Amino acid sequence: MTIVERHLFGPGPSNPYPEATTALAQPLLGHLDPVFLELMDETCDGLREVWGTSNRRTLPLSATGSAGMEAAFVNTVHPGDVVVVAVNGLFGQRMVDVAQRCGAEVVAVEHEWGTPVDVDRVLSAHPSPAIIAAVHAETSTGVRSDVAALGAGKGDALLLVDAVTSIGGIEVRADDWGVDIGYAGTQKCLGVAPGLAPFTISERAFERRVEKPRSWYLDLGLLGGYVGEASGRQRTYHHTAPTAMVASLHAALGRIRAEGLPAVWERHAEAGRILQDGLQDLGLELFAQEGSRLPELTTVTVPEGVDSAQVRAQLLERHGLEIGAGAGAYAASVWRIGLMGHNARPDAALLVLAALREALA
Amino acid sequence: MTIVERHLFGPGPSNPYPEATTALAQPLLGHLDPVFLELMDETCDGLREVWGTSNRRTLPLSATGSAGMEAAFVNTVHPGDVVVVAVNGLFGQRMVDVAQRCGAEVVAVEHEWGTPVDVDRVLSAHPSPAIIAAVHAETSTGVRSDVAALGAGKGDALLLVDAVTSIGGIEVRADDWGVDIGYAGTQKCLGVAPGLAPFTISERAFERRVEKPRSWYLDLGLLGGYVGEASGRQRTYHHTAPTAMVASLHAALGRIRAEGLPAVWERHAEAGRILQDGLQDLGLELFAQEGSRLPELTTVTVPEGVDSAQVRAQLLERHGLEIGAGAGAYAASVWRIGLMGHNARPDAALLVLAALREALA
Repeated sequence: MTIVERHLFGPGPSNPYPEATTALAQPLLGHLDPVFLELMDETCDGLREVWGTSNRRTLPLSATGSAGMEAAFVNTVHPGDVVVVAVNGLFGQRMVDVAQRCGAEVVAVEHEWGTPVDVDRVLSAHPSPAIIAAVHAETSTGVRSDVAALGAGKGDALLLVDAVTSIGGIEVRADDWGVDIGYAGTQKCLGVAPGLAPFTISERAFERRVEKPRSWYLDLGLLGGYVGEASGRQRTYHHTAPTAMVASLHAALGRIRAEGLPAVWERHAEAGRILQDGLQDLGLELFAQEGSRLPELTTVTVPEGVDSAQVRAQLLERHGLEIGAGAGAYAASVWRIGLMGHNARPDAALLVLAALREALA
Repeated sequence: MTIVERHLFGPGPSNPYPEATTALAQPLLGHLDPVFLELMDETCDGLREVWGTSNRRTLPLSATGSAGMEAAFVNTVHPGDVVVVAVNGLFGQRMVDVAQRCGAEVVAVEHEWGTPVDVDRVLSAHPSPAIIAAVHAETSTGVRSDVAALGAGKGDALLLVDAVTSIGGIEVRADDWGVDIGYAGTQKCLGVAPGLAPFTISERAFERRVEKPRSWYLDLGLLGGYVGEASGRQRTYHHTAPTAMVASLHAALGRIRAEGLPAVWERHAEAGRILQDGLQDLGLELFAQEGSRLPELTTVTVPEGVDSAQVRAQLLERHGLEIGAGAGAYAASVWRIGLMGHNARPDAALLVLAALREALA
């Protein structure tokens, strides 16, 4: 089979850090091997760093980011709980669905796509919600919302945050911002293949958790022993950890730590700046509202008269360069361009600009 | 970091086929890339072959084998449904827990560990169960049960089968045996790292499914579009497929297909025979009942006066050779030795025998 190489400049997955790829192919370890258990501990430590948390219960769940969302709700929603969900894109919509399946009484606060979460509207949507949920970086629109402001005003509610497209790319400070439950994915700014969901939960949220959630696989009460967070770091068998993927995440976190998280954020910021300035120089219009644009994921309006799918196909065929279609109603009218993780570099920004200029000429 | 190499002769993960490891480290593809979609189609075809099924809905779920169990029950158990579970080991026990969380009225048919499922007792446990569930190859005890006999007598019930430790190692004929719902893992006889759950469901079972299951992530109604099983093979975005792991599974299935499934089964049978004969020649006693022993996973009683954990530690430190402890009440009194997938070879059997002989001398 011919090996196909791609520039993964869509909304994820991105091209992994080379260290992450190398680690994937190293000799496999058993999930109970002492060497693997140490590697898992270090992985949880590295995740605490990118989450900006000291939460004991910080671990990579053994499934993709969407399972992280499910774990967040299934462990914390008691039947009938009021859950306020800020909806400003596809992933906010998905939260509504997932929370409802867990028996929540959902209060959805709808926003125009492309705009950030209106903190005042969300905080005043219900007098005493059990949970307030929002997406930090909306992958569907390229918009950043103010999680710190939600945390400051959350009152007694738990704050549940989707950080799939922010973690490892832009500032995330779960503890400082009052995030109680957070989930993410590995295939965006963390620079690892898809397959794990970095997850964190505060003591406060864990104490209020559902004792026996409907999901056995994502039951945080059982998963605690799996990563040895209990006293004495004793492990109990829950399920077989995806050891190759964890080793890969471990390697990427090592790379991020070596570069330094602020430098990593600055690298994402610079690549995004070059891309967004360059797109506007090409006469294109950015979709996300000014002031709330994510550097790692840029949304741009497809120019009048241009066939979105044809341009994407051309980029893929001619340059092996993937950019994303829009989401939902914007499938044909928006492009999503990600410069995440290893791809958050000036050369990647220049390449995608040059390729788009060529395609639109 | 020093690279640690292991002989993974425990109950899984096993050492992957080299083709599976190489594929893990190939350039990553996006989950919507036409090349990946073709690779996913071929993977589903390969899974149909190892399952022995023509089920349209045969796919790798994006999580480990335990999530396969959860998907099986969460999609098919309606609240109050009677589910008969054959319990002859740890994974039968787990089925009881998972089915109960889905709202089932569980009738557990308990067996002594080390013995196969008593088909008559299971079939007569309830006059009209909605589901009959059993483990084909019990990873906790090394026992094979007669799934075909369960299928022949299931009546109107759906037959739900755990094939985690059988698929790709011993004969599995889902269609011929009347299996309606089956799940497995990749890290045993399929010779891939842990992280995916090969899954299959018959049309009959799919028609009776829960319309909106409690799990969004594992909702088979939504997952259909994800693998393009709908007419015209149109894909809809559900979640980001773990593309590296799927590529690895694809490569392992290619290897299995090239060798030929009957030859693969025979290789497992031979390796198991050499190991089990050799263990008895060493004066050790096999745990699983004669006539029901799995070739790919052998259970052996720890001799009187021998410290199980110390022997396992010695094998690991001296030879990088992992064997497993027993499960549940047999943690200290049984060893589990797996020769699965790439490890199902005479040389692997000879090595573990020689190492055990040395350790017990």
